[in-house]
Amino acid sequence: MRSPIVTLLTDFGSKDHFAGILKGVILNINPSVEIVDISHNITPYNITEGAIILNQAFSYFPKGTIHIAVIDPGVGTDRKPILVVDKNYFFIGPDNGIFGLVYNRLKEFNVFKITNHLFFLKSISATFHGRDIFAPVAAHLSTGVPPSEMGPEITNYKSLSIPLPSIKSKNINGNIIYIDGFGNLVTNIHRRCIQKIKKESSLKIKIGGKIITKVSPNYQSVSRGNLLALIGSSEMVEIAVREGNACKMLGAKEGDDVLICK
Amino acid sequence: MRSPIVTLLTDFGSKDHFAGILKGVILNINPSVEIVDISHNITPYNITEGAIILNQAFSYFPKGTIHIAVIDPGVGTDRKPILVVDKNYFFIGPDNGIFGLVYNRLKEFNVFKITNHLFFLKSISATFHGRDIFAPVAAHLSTGVPPSEMGPEITNYKSLSIPLPSIKSKNINGNIIYIDGFGNLVTNIHRRCIQKIKKESSLKIKIGGKIITKVSPNYQSVSRGNLLALIGSSEMVEIAVREGNACKMLGAKEGDDVLICK
Amino acid sequence: MRSPIVTLLTDFGSKDHFAGILKGVILNINPSVEIVDISHNITPYNITEGAIILNQAFSYFPKGTIHIAVIDPGVGTDRKPILVVDKNYFFIGPDNGIFGLVYNRLKEFNVFKITNHLFFLKSISATFHGRDIFAPVAAHLSTGVPPSEMGPEITNYKSLSIPLPSIKSKNINGNIIYIDGFGNLVTNIHRRCIQKIKKESSLKIKIGGKIITKVSPNYQSVSRGNLLALIGSSEMVEIAVREGNACKMLGAKEGDDVLICK
Repeated sequence: MRSPIVTLLTDFGSKDHFAGILKGVILNINPSVEIVDISHNITPYNITEGAIILNQAFSYFPKGTIHIAVIDPGVGTDRKPILVVDKNYFFIGPDNGIFGLVYNRLKEFNVFKITNHLFFLKSISATFHGRDIFAPVAAHLSTGVPPSEMGPEITNYKSLSIPLPSIKSKNINGNIIYIDGFGNLVTNIHRRCIQKIKKESSLKIKIGGKIITKVSPNYQSVSRGNLLALIGSSEMVEIAVREGNACKMLGAKEGDDVLICK
Repeated sequence: MRSPIVTLLTDFGSKDHFAGILKGVILNINPSVEIVDISHNITPYNITEGAIILNQAFSYFPKGTIHIAVIDPGVGTDRKPILVVDKNYFFIGPDNGIFGLVYNRLKEFNVFKITNHLFFLKSISATFHGRDIFAPVAAHLSTGVPPSEMGPEITNYKSLSIPLPSIKSKNINGNIIYIDGFGNLVTNIHRRCIQKIKKESSLKIKIGGKIITKVSPNYQSVSRGNLLALIGSSEMVEIAVREGNACKMLGAKEGDDVLICK
Repeated sequence: MRSPIVTLLTDFGSKDHFAGILKGVILNINPSVEIVDISHNITPYNITEGAIILNQAFSYFPKGTIHIAVIDPGVGTDRKPILVVDKNYFFIGPDNGIFGLVYNRLKEFNVFKITNHLFFLKSISATFHGRDIFAPVAAHLSTGVPPSEMGPEITNYKSLSIPLPSIKSKNINGNIIYIDGFGNLVTNIHRRCIQKIKKESSLKIKIGGKIITKVSPNYQSVSRGNLLALIGSSEMVEIAVREGNACKMLGAKEGDDVLICK
């Protein structure tokens, strides 16, 4: 018998009691749950960053996994708590765009507004719905409560837009959309996007005043400390420094332009 | 059959092997334990901070949970390793005040000095009793060993005092007692304390030269980047910045004064 | 029935999706695995640091534990993915020295080059073998697949050398080999090394222009904020500051000289 899996993605950080409390609440309702941390170190209030991380991770988990995502600057207002259900996964969190990228990946899904206080903690604070609503709802769901018992289905849920690169006469104008812990700069330019216009080995990639002249097969294709471009693990073009930190070297930040041309 | 739960609260940080070793030691003695991290990022040696976090989190866990807390600057001296037991929970750690706030919450409890080497690792270091004493004792306890086998009951355990606010002619003089990862400033002023003297909506809150003129219902009651006060998830008055960091904005630190008046 | 345990040691950091994905991949193949984090905060690309942490932690886990270690600057090149097996443990990671200190501790062991794509994810990236190779191989191993099915046995695996102290006419010249999260400076000088030459209480320890005149029994043997030396939990001489940070006080770094003499 496999345990139901509940994952956690938050901006709670590593020091406070917040993430621990979510786990206590869940295990108190369903002690057989297996809880897995995806991350608690999303930049505070950064919904887009949370959406990107969730989008990277969710599909690697077993069918039936319940993903909780709490990056929730609007906690305590009338933004809706929601439950998203497709044939493989459940997603629980605030309706603020945190599931915006997931929606693009799922084929068919239903979104429920979570309203049924039966499945909440008794007292609801204005600042910690992770504890009071999202964790207990996930735990009850893991015991087999049908999603439709959580509240009414809705269709006006919130989307999220990540800029797409623009392609004009074989030039690709893209952006950095995420910077990982190694300082690698992840762009919004997909492998397929490059393949459409030219062979990877004959590209010029311009970023922050620097020019990179090819897409390398791996990090060690250049000397230590040198800048390179490659196709990262999410199939997007990444700028990296071999055994170094591209973000620091270039003083890069999310949103910065990346130009690919002949 | 539910697994016994053991939680961990330490100042070991996220990089070293210390927390991982605790888990190995526990699972080696009782492989069916479910281990849950509350935090490993308590400020090094800060017993008060650890006590506050533990006090926030412990009661959300299922009955029978064993809470290990190792903020232990006196490791290797004659400070006592102790086991605290009430009808719902077990607490294991050094007798240095780390359980001081828990004592105030429990109705009836017993404290045992942990002395029985049968339940320790074979060799006891002078610097890592988490590994050598606390983790193995918790693991043996989780297998059903009665608390009284760990050592003699004691009554001279160490308390901890957190300053209480003073109330004089409807002025409340309180302090910041904790700063969370969002930079929210948690005070020692309870919701009940305010309610005693006046309506929340007609308060003045003075902190670091700034004046906040009401208690808001949630973080979004002010414009982004603005200062506000609200009742936090622990029922205490908190000073926050909407989608920002009050600690940084005010240059605040633990102990700073917070005055509430008409 | 005990669950198989898989531990994770990486330089992935705490923010990104990388560690969460490893867990998803493992649980997708074997949902009954118990996953334990040793650390995800090894300094990026620092194989020696990872080797030291793994060496500290691995032997505290139950027999049968599978240890994954991914500090892997050479990912995507022809460095080999390997599986190390002794009578108690399995180790999975790149052949870059990360298991160098483990080899010194194991009596008899076999090393397999991991080549069998049957046990990989379908598509292998050039940048994330933790996800594509190491995690799925560990998961399949945990289901009972024999190690020899992962690939051919090899003998030319990579070692790792940590400097040993030199001893000349009762002077010990050692180095700082690790700095922990408390700022304690762990040296390469073992307790036995000191005992060979003189009584601990009559030593002089020279580090960064400072002289410490004995090996203390515990951190509280000196006044708060003062420098001391003691035998740490790994049996090595450590330099510490009582309730402080020796690394910051001395401006110390890994590799710095430590001299012990009369």
